[in-house]
Amino acid sequence: MIAEILSVGTELLMGQIANTDAQYISKRLSELGVTLYRHTTVGDNVGRLKEALAEAFSRADLVITTGGLGPTEDDLTKETVAEYFSLPLEMDEASLAALRAHLEQIGRPMTDNNLKQALFPTGARIMPNACGTAPGCIVEKDGKIAAILPGPPFEMKDMFERQLAPWLSQRSGVHIESRFLRIFGIGESLLETQLQDLFHSDNPTLALYCGPGEVLARVSARANTKEEAAQMMEPLVQEILRRVGSFYYGSGMDASISKAALDLLKSRHETVCFAESCTGGRLAAALIDHSGASDALCESYVTYSDEAKTRILGVSLHTLSAHTCYSAECAIEMAEGARRISGANWSVSVTGLAGPNGGSERTPVGTVYIAVSGAEGTSAKEFHFAGGRDHIRTLAVGHALNMLRLKLSGQ
Amino acid sequence: MIAEILSVGTELLMGQIANTDAQYISKRLSELGVTLYRHTTVGDNVGRLKEALAEAFSRADLVITTGGLGPTEDDLTKETVAEYFSLPLEMDEASLAALRAHLEQIGRPMTDNNLKQALFPTGARIMPNACGTAPGCIVEKDGKIAAILPGPPFEMKDMFERQLAPWLSQRSGVHIESRFLRIFGIGESLLETQLQDLFHSDNPTLALYCGPGEVLARVSARANTKEEAAQMMEPLVQEILRRVGSFYYGSGMDASISKAALDLLKSRHETVCFAESCTGGRLAAALIDHSGASDALCESYVTYSDEAKTRILGVSLHTLSAHTCYSAECAIEMAEGARRISGANWSVSVTGLAGPNGGSERTPVGTVYIAVSGAEGTSAKEFHFAGGRDHIRTLAVGHALNMLRLKLSGQ
Repeated sequence: MIAEILSVGTELLMGQIANTDAQYISKRLSELGVTLYRHTTVGDNVGRLKEALAEAFSRADLVITTGGLGPTEDDLTKETVAEYFSLPLEMDEASLAALRAHLEQIGRPMTDNNLKQALFPTGARIMPNACGTAPGCIVEKDGKIAAILPGPPFEMKDMFERQLAPWLSQRSGVHIESRFLRIFGIGESLLETQLQDLFHSDNPTLALYCGPGEVLARVSARANTKEEAAQMMEPLVQEILRRVGSFYYGSGMDASISKAALDLLKSRHETVCFAESCTGGRLAAALIDHSGASDALCESYVTYSDEAKTRILGVSLHTLSAHTCYSAECAIEMAEGARRISGANWSVSVTGLAGPNGGSERTPVGTVYIAVSGAEGTSAKEFHFAGGRDHIRTLAVGHALNMLRLKLSGQ
Repeated sequence: MIAEILSVGTELLMGQIANTDAQYISKRLSELGVTLYRHTTVGDNVGRLKEALAEAFSRADLVITTGGLGPTEDDLTKETVAEYFSLPLEMDEASLAALRAHLEQIGRPMTDNNLKQALFPTGARIMPNACGTAPGCIVEKDGKIAAILPGPPFEMKDMFERQLAPWLSQRSGVHIESRFLRIFGIGESLLETQLQDLFHSDNPTLALYCGPGEVLARVSARANTKEEAAQMMEPLVQEILRRVGSFYYGSGMDASISKAALDLLKSRHETVCFAESCTGGRLAAALIDHSGASDALCESYVTYSDEAKTRILGVSLHTLSAHTCYSAECAIEMAEGARRISGANWSVSVTGLAGPNGGSERTPVGTVYIAVSGAEGTSAKEFHFAGGRDHIRTLAVGHALNMLRLKLSGQ
């Protein structure tokens, strides 16, 4: 089954909101084995909506629309779909009763405008809205299917999961399974070169996506059952893992380098303390992003000035004057100081120049030193990151967590 | 000028990321007076990209593409645009040199794949990439314009603002001036009620955009010159400022509550130190997001465990046993401790329950206490934030900085 998403809403074209509905539906369609070739967004304009709908159906069997189901005059998605299929609109009494009850519950009067929310193309399979006033529906005619969902993300997701997903799952015979391998610290083009011969396979397929400091490798296989698809992709997954070695840190859409480091700490029942300069608290915040971080982090320090590095962490004045705070020596003393005062099993320090000002020939903007300290000693690494202040700090956080992860996993 | 956005990337169709590029560009085009009728997203597939590009140009004068500029084989946007315009690709020596320098700086080898990032359709106006390896370009032929931008949001934004926006602005004859008034701590619907009669104006116009804890009011005026437009909006701006009072904290797209607090500290030549529990370093990181933060912040503390709150900040065991760490008493002692040990002029503490676990009837998830301490004493406030862990922490950071801002401005 080939699908397209058609999003309706002037607020999307004005940039007032991001199209998170399209993202959510796309992710779920890929999991459900429905092939998606295009997203289209148009405003609340009946002419342009009609045009986009006809175009989408010229390419796809299934068009999923979001938005344009509200009570106002410019909410016209159902009307336009009915016109496309040459079906009249009919009042659904059950929807009307539910709407009445909902409005009564929230203390709003029923207006004439609300009535149109209970109108559907004849023969439509109605999907009640558990979270709002606008029901959706599935309309099917001559081999074409329109699935009409509301725009507000909360309502859309609820309706998708409870009603559209089970319906689609039953419809599509084919299963597509995907695995997402997360790889940190190797560039996209270098990785592509290393995996070049693996891209030619048609089923399973391999694709790479690039993020700050990391690459996501997606392996997908198509088969008649979930198990068969999983089995088909296994040799390719194993070959990738063999080639990327310790650059691989976890799999799944929700994996992150901070979660990987946290999970290792928790499994070892160990703690970490950070000593941050240019990252300014982001490293601690990245760990504390995850619920349950309190098992692995009790305290953390931001020592932004040289004086704070000396007073709080015990960095020596000699180190600062001989090497400046932008040095491996300083990073090492920061990490050792943080481990000493916190009593944590591990510590990680970051000191560097995020810019945009202050760069010199000796220390250009983007120079960052990261040290990891543990029971077996302390080691530091020098990095040269490119980009703006924010990007440099993001990369520094990623690499600091990656260095900790490598130590924790004994690499 | 009629525009469309064409986003290229299988990661969008797989739902791995939301199309925030399209949102950003849409918002900026509306500010620049460019009419936008459609967003289209296709995967990294040359046939479908070609089709979508031709369709977009059948409706629009300007097509802005994002994505597909990477070094890999399936990055084909420039190639497809060149084919559409029947223009050959030429190597740009300046881009090649910049690419070489960039890769050298980050210590990555130049691969054959990288070379294609320096190829452009003949006659294209090249837009260097200040944040990554893929330059963009503007291609113009027979009254049609393609503006080709990279996909990674930080690269795209930088290129859009520095290069495409000024170019577009010069192209469109009409001047639209906008002012963005940033308002913190008042809900969107309450604000809307207070400003209700001001929404009816056609030129200048007023629109509200809602963010976490804050509302952005955009006032736009359209005129023949920049000065005329600026003059037209002034009375409306003044009326809004009069009505919102101290909820207003700054203007401009780049203003933020953290920048407002930092600027006040710097103008007073004063410093701040944070004592963070549930925000876990984000408060310090928000200040250090801005270059020059070292004038106002020397050190900061994350005290996540009760033991750390006591040992580092001197929170009394009595307070923790009588009131728990989720209390105004604890927040006050944390703030006072941080001010004492750091010697900063001001301190701000945050302690609360970001969830999702650990809530009780007495302390539901979202309960947060924030204290500000200065030479004239310490005061705390209790908040009850709704939403998930991330949202609660974002709101806590915003309100902590806002409380500091109000104190610093004597309110």
